Amino acid sequence: MAETLLEQIHTPEDVRLLPEDALPRLATEIRERMIDVVSRTGGHLAPSLGTVELTIALCRVFNFPTDKVIWDVGHQSYAWKMLTGRNQEMDTLRQFGGVRGFPFPAESSFDATVGGHAGVALSTALGMAAARDARNGTEAILAVVGDASLTNGISLEALNAIRHTTERMILVINDNGMSISQNVGAFARMFARRIAGIRYNRIRAAAELAGHKLRLTGLKSLYRAFKRAVKPLLLRHRSAIFEDLGLRYIGPIDGHDIPALCGALRAAAEGHVPVALHIATVKGKGYAPAERDPSKWHGVAPWSKHTSAQGKAQAPESWSDAVGAILCELAAEDPRIVAVTAAMRDGTGLGDFFRKFPKRAYDVGICEAHALAFAAGLAAEGLRPFVAIYSTFAQRAVDCMMHDICLPHLPVTLCLDRAGVVGADGPTHHGLYDIAMFRALPNLTFYAPATRAGLKQAMREALTGNDAVIIRYPRGPICEQLPESLPIPETLKTPCLLALGDTATWAAPIATELGLPYIAIERIKPLPECLNNLKGRPLITLENAAIQAGFGSAVAETHDAPVLILGWDDHFVPQGSEQELRTWGALDQASLLTKIRQFIQEQRA
Amino acid sequence: MAETLLEQIHTPEDVRLLPEDALPRLATEIRERMIDVVSRTGGHLAPSLGTVELTIALCRVFNFPTDKVIWDVGHQSYAWKMLTGRNQEMDTLRQFGGVRGFPFPAESSFDATVGGHAGVALSTALGMAAARDARNGTEAILAVVGDASLTNGISLEALNAIRHTTERMILVINDNGMSISQNVGAFARMFARRIAGIRYNRIRAAAELAGHKLRLTGLKSLYRAFKRAVKPLLLRHRSAIFEDLGLRYIGPIDGHDIPALCGALRAAAEGHVPVALHIATVKGKGYAPAERDPSKWHGVAPWSKHTSAQGKAQAPESWSDAVGAILCELAAEDPRIVAVTAAMRDGTGLGDFFRKFPKRAYDVGICEAHALAFAAGLAAEGLRPFVAIYSTFAQRAVDCMMHDICLPHLPVTLCLDRAGVVGADGPTHHGLYDIAMFRALPNLTFYAPATRAGLKQAMREALTGNDAVIIRYPRGPICEQLPESLPIPETLKTPCLLALGDTATWAAPIATELGLPYIAIERIKPLPECLNNLKGRPLITLENAAIQAGFGSAVAETHDAPVLILGWDDHFVPQGSEQELRTWGALDQASLLTKIRQFIQEQRA
Repeated sequence: MAETLLEQIHTPEDVRLLPEDALPRLATEIRERMIDVVSRTGGHLAPSLGTVELTIALCRVFNFPTDKVIWDVGHQSYAWKMLTGRNQEMDTLRQFGGVRGFPFPAESSFDATVGGHAGVALSTALGMAAARDARNGTEAILAVVGDASLTNGISLEALNAIRHTTERMILVINDNGMSISQNVGAFARMFARRIAGIRYNRIRAAAELAGHKLRLTGLKSLYRAFKRAVKPLLLRHRSAIFEDLGLRYIGPIDGHDIPALCGALRAAAEGHVPVALHIATVKGKGYAPAERDPSKWHGVAPWSKHTSAQGKAQAPESWSDAVGAILCELAAEDPRIVAVTAAMRDGTGLGDFFRKFPKRAYDVGICEAHALAFAAGLAAEGLRPFVAIYSTFAQRAVDCMMHDICLPHLPVTLCLDRAGVVGADGPTHHGLYDIAMFRALPNLTFYAPATRAGLKQAMREALTGNDAVIIRYPRGPICEQLPESLPIPETLKTPCLLALGDTATWAAPIATELGLPYIAIERIKPLPECLNNLKGRPLITLENAAIQAGFGSAVAETHDAPVLILGWDDHFVPQGSEQELRTWGALDQASLLTKIRQFIQEQRA
Repeated sequence: MAETLLEQIHTPEDVRLLPEDALPRLATEIRERMIDVVSRTGGHLAPSLGTVELTIALCRVFNFPTDKVIWDVGHQSYAWKMLTGRNQEMDTLRQFGGVRGFPFPAESSFDATVGGHAGVALSTALGMAAARDARNGTEAILAVVGDASLTNGISLEALNAIRHTTERMILVINDNGMSISQNVGAFARMFARRIAGIRYNRIRAAAELAGHKLRLTGLKSLYRAFKRAVKPLLLRHRSAIFEDLGLRYIGPIDGHDIPALCGALRAAAEGHVPVALHIATVKGKGYAPAERDPSKWHGVAPWSKHTSAQGKAQAPESWSDAVGAILCELAAEDPRIVAVTAAMRDGTGLGDFFRKFPKRAYDVGICEAHALAFAAGLAAEGLRPFVAIYSTFAQRAVDCMMHDICLPHLPVTLCLDRAGVVGADGPTHHGLYDIAMFRALPNLTFYAPATRAGLKQAMREALTGNDAVIIRYPRGPICEQLPESLPIPETLKTPCLLALGDTATWAAPIATELGLPYIAIERIKPLPECLNNLKGRPLITLENAAIQAGFGSAVAETHDAPVLILGWDDHFVPQGSEQELRTWGALDQASLLTKIRQFIQEQRA
């Protein structure tokens, strides 16, 4: 089989050297390769299908890695990875030790920043632009930001700062008219594409390109006159916000038209004013099933690309689904219950709740801090809000939990989904730090249920108590029932194994193997009363969280006998299956057995 | 002496019952009382002087506490406290057990939320409005937000959500054209007052008032015709952003003209569209020294109101000043050093740095998350940014520290000012949770220097290492030198006292009294090597931070002998002097001696 164009690309420079008429074929090859890879590895398909032409255009116009592009939420970046020397390794995408699903500087010098959380690209790009300006550098700095990310508070803080900070940077707004589920709010409307404008703006892009060429040939005054004449036509409503922000607005440009994109990017790279380049893309572009239902194809498990059937049907019920189902059940009885999500209604299992109780459900977009302060207002008025956010994204809302919820002592329940390792999404998405970040807050009850019954009890107690509540639970299937533990023997020499939440299923076979009693601990704060009965006894704690400042640490703060703390050590955890990661982190069954045996021996010595 | 008008006011209803021509006298009395109180107690004078007329107008127009007003950063709220039944107690302002310097629901049913951190009022107000809408309530919900707070990310997230969430709420923009030091950025410009417009808008306010009266008399069509005619004149540039956001814009209104304010508030309370009511106030209004230099009079220590001389000159050098001075010193030698602050350049001691190195200093406004992501960009380009933020406000930036700095392993230094109890500002401002929130992050070195020498060493090490760095230090005077400790005796039975950072000065006299050795611990992560020499020895840890997940907790995680952890217990700490708070929290010398003696006895038993 002859080598494809894509196989000949090893650096962005190779893309620049291709003849222009070869580019559509390159785009097709990238899409075929991407669909082929992701059908085997799973991953963020639809977003990356939407940015193929943009990535090609970026490689044509700029000189990476001297010039820099920051991908906001890097699940748009698969084509980028393919064109920057990682095409061959793409088969390892999201696998343990393989190519990461998000940009990661340690993986490639072409990846300028870590891109796993939405909304920070503009801020980091601005920092890089400021550093460049300070040394009178000339390289271009671009941030590619999705329309939904642009309404995140950090993006808006950065938008506010651009004009004040630098005269040169390019904000590419990748506007596919939807976030993972849908866009929310007024800024979204303001930033939104007017499809009707696209054809018109093709003309504009051509004009920009023509202008660029005019400038290159020195006919600057002609270009300026041309621009003056055209400008009133171009000044449409959507540009007002960006011009108010001190940015030159170019767009919307058809994000699948490579020459138009190249023209617009070249125009944007000139001049001494920061630019908002607004491009309209189709999420899932080029793969019919994904174009029809981009939400479903946002992030996918492996599937058969021939039938396009995703194999999710037989999956056992997840913790997220269980939270959603129990919340629906409780809400049918208790009219005070309302639900809040931050652009993750399906991911957090709240889809049904939104359908059944549309007036009691709020999706605030990618705005985690606002979500919690908003919930504080709901709770202050007597409602019982349940806010479901992934653990890692809730790091955005730590202050609101402290200042707006715990300090006024309001009964908001924060459901921390994806707490613990999450698998293929890797270090940006593992939820390992929530216990440390939240457990010091007063007026808080913090649960980590081990089974469905424990989850339901925690959610019920959240309704009867007056404390703020956090409930953490992992990605993956919920546990229905745990095996019984051995009784706790009289002799204080026998250690007891305390397994927090989901790690009870890790602990049970180990306890059996070692003949130790184990207890599934379902509350981190306050620690359950049963710990009082363990005074003087050596303890082994196990948790799917960082060791430092975690659950075992809480036990060690008060316990009066030795505590062996088992959990994730002081390193960021890579991507991989839960089993691969447990082996990597010495938390697999064999490693745990070894460590616990050694501890038991030390206690006997 | 005859009773003043102010003394006759016990509820907002009493304000409503006053004849209109008595209101200027009431405003004068409020100001006199406020200046009198704050000259004795210290406090946030200038902001509260600016909102006297607004507060009177709110009391005239609305029915509190059924209607609700959320003060964003409640240091505007002294007049509010006076008019809602707390005038007599104002002499206890900011004192231990006295009236709080910020709104606090536990203090009064008129205080709808805790208001100590800028930027959340709009989100909580929106939550309250949503709850009201859900039960078809009719009460008014207002948020009073300073122009600087409006550019905070959470405010912007909420602005984005208003139109999507409710048809009725009133955002009062209290525009004094400056934040604590100065406003930053494009949104600030957009939201900013055009002084020139004020006189014009007095006419407009009168028209609104006339319109309101017309509506009351049923002549609605006449009013509408009038409005249609006037509207094109009113639609000025500054209103565009709010109208894009789906808000009706009214303003700017002279914020010291009570009838104009009442008219505008009445107009805002009608209709079925959320309103942005833009009022222009003078920070420090009515007290000449404060009008002249409102920054200096933003938050003040007690002073002589006759001479208006603030007595700060003889104060010993603070930790903040020392950080600023050392940073200037280091920056003179190391061109990689840049400084970032979030609207606190003077509070964090960076005033001199900004003057000496204006091109290497960035004030990003009240945008703590952006500050850290921006610093990540600076560091990625080879610079060494020092970001100085108060501990409690850095809670806004926990995720950026994890995702944008520690994960890509960038050498950003976060200087956590005001770590520990801060005194009169109380629970919203104490910095007690930073150790818990940050110490679990990998790739981080976390210092808590005890003396100037320790501070300087930490700052130097931040420059040579590759880790992200946090340096925490308290409010108040820096310690130059600690008394020497007794040597650590051979016998393992004698406990050692480990005092973190600033608590070394608490520990030294206790160690002397008890004949114990003590060590000033200056690094939380990694813990210093000297702990290895203490194996098997009982330890007592002391810290100016929450016990849970703090420094003592870190020691207990790894130490192999009993650890007594002393620090702030699991309650929010009230306001008061450091000594009062230490007594309240059983951390005064006598309490510490008692607890440590008991621990020693237990170890001997």
